[in-house]
Amino acid sequence: MIQITLIQIDNYGPWTVTPGPRAEPDLQTLQSRLYGDLEREFGARGGIVFYNRFDNLIAISNGIGKEDHIKIQDSIRNRYPITVSMGVAARENALEAQKVATEMVQKGGGAQSKDRHEILNIDSLASVEDSKVQIAHIDIDDITTTLTDVTTAYDTSIVVYDVLIELMKELKEHNGLCFFIGGDNYMAPSNGITKSELREALRKVDEKTGVTLKAGVGISKFAGRAADLADLGLEDIRADLTDDSVLVFNDK
Amino acid sequence: MIQITLIQIDNYGPWTVTPGPRAEPDLQTLQSRLYGDLEREFGARGGIVFYNRFDNLIAISNGIGKEDHIKIQDSIRNRYPITVSMGVAARENALEAQKVATEMVQKGGGAQSKDRHEILNIDSLASVEDSKVQIAHIDIDDITTTLTDVTTAYDTSIVVYDVLIELMKELKEHNGLCFFIGGDNYMAPSNGITKSELREALRKVDEKTGVTLKAGVGISKFAGRAADLADLGLEDIRADLTDDSVLVFNDK
Amino acid sequence: MIQITLIQIDNYGPWTVTPGPRAEPDLQTLQSRLYGDLEREFGARGGIVFYNRFDNLIAISNGIGKEDHIKIQDSIRNRYPITVSMGVAARENALEAQKVATEMVQKGGGAQSKDRHEILNIDSLASVEDSKVQIAHIDIDDITTTLTDVTTAYDTSIVVYDVLIELMKELKEHNGLCFFIGGDNYMAPSNGITKSELREALRKVDEKTGVTLKAGVGISKFAGRAADLADLGLEDIRADLTDDSVLVFNDK
Amino acid sequence: MIQITLIQIDNYGPWTVTPGPRAEPDLQTLQSRLYGDLEREFGARGGIVFYNRFDNLIAISNGIGKEDHIKIQDSIRNRYPITVSMGVAARENALEAQKVATEMVQKGGGAQSKDRHEILNIDSLASVEDSKVQIAHIDIDDITTTLTDVTTAYDTSIVVYDVLIELMKELKEHNGLCFFIGGDNYMAPSNGITKSELREALRKVDEKTGVTLKAGVGISKFAGRAADLADLGLEDIRADLTDDSVLVFNDK
Repeated sequence: MIQITLIQIDNYGPWTVTPGPRAEPDLQTLQSRLYGDLEREFGARGGIVFYNRFDNLIAISNGIGKEDHIKIQDSIRNRYPITVSMGVAARENALEAQKVATEMVQKGGGAQSKDRHEILNIDSLASVEDSKVQIAHIDIDDITTTLTDVTTAYDTSIVVYDVLIELMKELKEHNGLCFFIGGDNYMAPSNGITKSELREALRKVDEKTGVTLKAGVGISKFAGRAADLADLGLEDIRADLTDDSVLVFNDK
Repeated sequence: MIQITLIQIDNYGPWTVTPGPRAEPDLQTLQSRLYGDLEREFGARGGIVFYNRFDNLIAISNGIGKEDHIKIQDSIRNRYPITVSMGVAARENALEAQKVATEMVQKGGGAQSKDRHEILNIDSLASVEDSKVQIAHIDIDDITTTLTDVTTAYDTSIVVYDVLIELMKELKEHNGLCFFIGGDNYMAPSNGITKSELREALRKVDEKTGVTLKAGVGISKFAGRAADLADLGLEDIRADLTDDSVLVFNDK
Repeated sequence: MIQITLIQIDNYGPWTVTPGPRAEPDLQTLQSRLYGDLEREFGARGGIVFYNRFDNLIAISNGIGKEDHIKIQDSIRNRYPITVSMGVAARENALEAQKVATEMVQKGGGAQSKDRHEILNIDSLASVEDSKVQIAHIDIDDITTTLTDVTTAYDTSIVVYDVLIELMKELKEHNGLCFFIGGDNYMAPSNGITKSELREALRKVDEKTGVTLKAGVGISKFAGRAADLADLGLEDIRADLTDDSVLVFNDK
Repeated sequence: MIQITLIQIDNYGPWTVTPGPRAEPDLQTLQSRLYGDLEREFGARGGIVFYNRFDNLIAISNGIGKEDHIKIQDSIRNRYPITVSMGVAARENALEAQKVATEMVQKGGGAQSKDRHEILNIDSLASVEDSKVQIAHIDIDDITTTLTDVTTAYDTSIVVYDVLIELMKELKEHNGLCFFIGGDNYMAPSNGITKSELREALRKVDEKTGVTLKAGVGISKFAGRAADLADLGLEDIRADLTDDSVLVFNDK
């Protein structure tokens, strides 16, 4: 079971323009700091957060219970001008878990409701025994020599975001999620996706976008450890220790 | 003339995996903090930064000269385990400016070169007289009621990133750039793009993605002020003060 | 048993002036961020950190073991241009615990040694059963009306730091420590100090400095909870629920 | 003329305990982040901030006008759960400037007033021609070998804070201020204090505390540059380029 927490800023849209529009550099700082701080909080507890849309962040939160979620909500309220609501769900795959986690937040009220404050709706938590997180760390082969160092920054970005949207859609077909994590790197919560399915998915995206993708996959009880294992897999592929485009490390 | 600074972390890829892969939550925190801090530095000087790919950030830097760029590079070196190189160029449109800014960085060495440290290559700076920044702040109509509150967080994200990639490509046709700035918001440095061109570009993206886009456009000498004006334009459209999908405020 | 971690930046003095002196605002930002981040890391794990001298920070770390200390050291190395060494010790009182924790760091090499990197020397850890943290939260009666609102900011600060140094010395006599935590607030790890001893200590400092001090005391297994209880005690005194200058809450 | 800005958090005391006491690690993080951010804002504009008591911060703000003060206040409001009021004054010496700056804040309402929000009261600004900042960077000789490496962290801190309070009082006699900036370092805004007066002041504090102090002094139009010069002076003393305990660099 993978446990997903959807974190949504309460009534953020209206706040950003009340009384008048707030300065964009301030909002950008607020959002990036909020993401960084949530990453620290979940990270210190073995989880990982993806910024997603910055006002709706998605965390893999296996091992993190109700009390810790409350502490995190409190710590945001105590340091930010905004509050966050959270929905939590554990399911066999990440797509389903985020679906239910979203519903848990929606149940508490709309994203622009004035009345919703720091809702924490927990559908389910993964027990330590049932806990399982599979993460694929995907990157683009040789992006530095083929793109970053030879074309414009913007053209490179177009490729990187093209790959992102194709990965997002393709992995959804297999009940996975995919997030951009900077550079030419993507992370995909991918419980239940087999090695051959992932290999095939990458191949399809390769064809559509013209790049060559590879992936290290980590499987563990908690997200931080799974991401570490995924990184090790990716390192081994980079070091040509395998010809495969996918390498899996499983410590379960 | 719009002045663009490309900020590239020196030798970042290799650093993230030396001696072994560094913990992903740490890297995510590092990247989001770096972005937030660069936003503060450029923002305090009237500019604005887009995180772009986090290891390659793009700033509109009109009004910010050589000495300030050096101070910003120093401040990063003094507080981070990494350093940043920068290329700067002023041109009639943003696409061309980022192209030359990229070349300025590339001239200093590769993104994964061990020998490149804190290069600052300035092709050109916009004088106060010639300085002009046009920014479009684009968002999706009624995303809260049509997506955020009724579908899953991930499905909403797919739409938002679909719109992003279409905007990136479409605005490039008009020598503009486009960046995601969180929520359902995009910012497009768009010097030289007329109101009708932008209206038509939004309409094309609407057709491809199924959403309805609108844009406030600000024109001023410096990026911070142009973004403020763009926000005001967007507010007026939201308040139904116009039927147009594009509203321009120009204080030049 | 109270468990103390001494955190010392490795070779910090030389680093601040190499190759030349680094800009003071950068160093001040670095130090305050480092403190804030360590506070998040220890705080997320139930502990608390005092900035002390900023390059030598003192944490109450009951409940935080070897692996977590390593993760915290790693997270600093991954995000800062400096590294930190740590010494850990559990003792009956805070003065003795910090003494041994300091020796643990010193054993690893000098504060300006080029060879010392991320030493983690653990003398002892408090078991969950033996764990006990007593914290006094001390503040000055009516500082706003008697000082902040009527005299100069600097003169108020002189009083506040006068009280600090007297508290530091007085509580040392009872094997306690004392730290300034902002405003007119002090926190004293005070295992083993009785209510009457603390009352008498405050009275002595009152006489020397001309202010009136009061204290909430919290006793619990972990520092975060003990600080919460101390805050509650202080609130009750402020609300005149007692005439005593000291109020103790003990959840052990 | 030295220009001082007193920054005071609005109604902070009551906020920290409403509805109940907020977690101390959260407050400590808030305060250290606020200080770090204000340091960035003033630092980017050539100034410097001392944390002082964290809820009452003192900045040397020569060169920073009304509009920039407002932008800084806005940036705090947009990213923090609290707001800040400011008083500004330019005078011949720092003690007098902070006195008037304090009065400017007090005029706007009490530190715990519910009605005071983001007051900005400017008594006077230093013109570029009249602008002059003198800063002494003071440190303790050989603290690493005499204290840090051989005694306990707490005993070293007692010495460091003893020196602080003596410096605070002694320099006040000469119309200067003094702040602790971490490690064994102090910074003293010291317009008008001659080299021999400073030498004598350090000698007196040496006698009272048993340490040996030295100081680099920088004089320039703006605080950042003055601090840089002070650092260079201190470096030269450390390098035994002079036998004097005080070295002055003046670029005016």
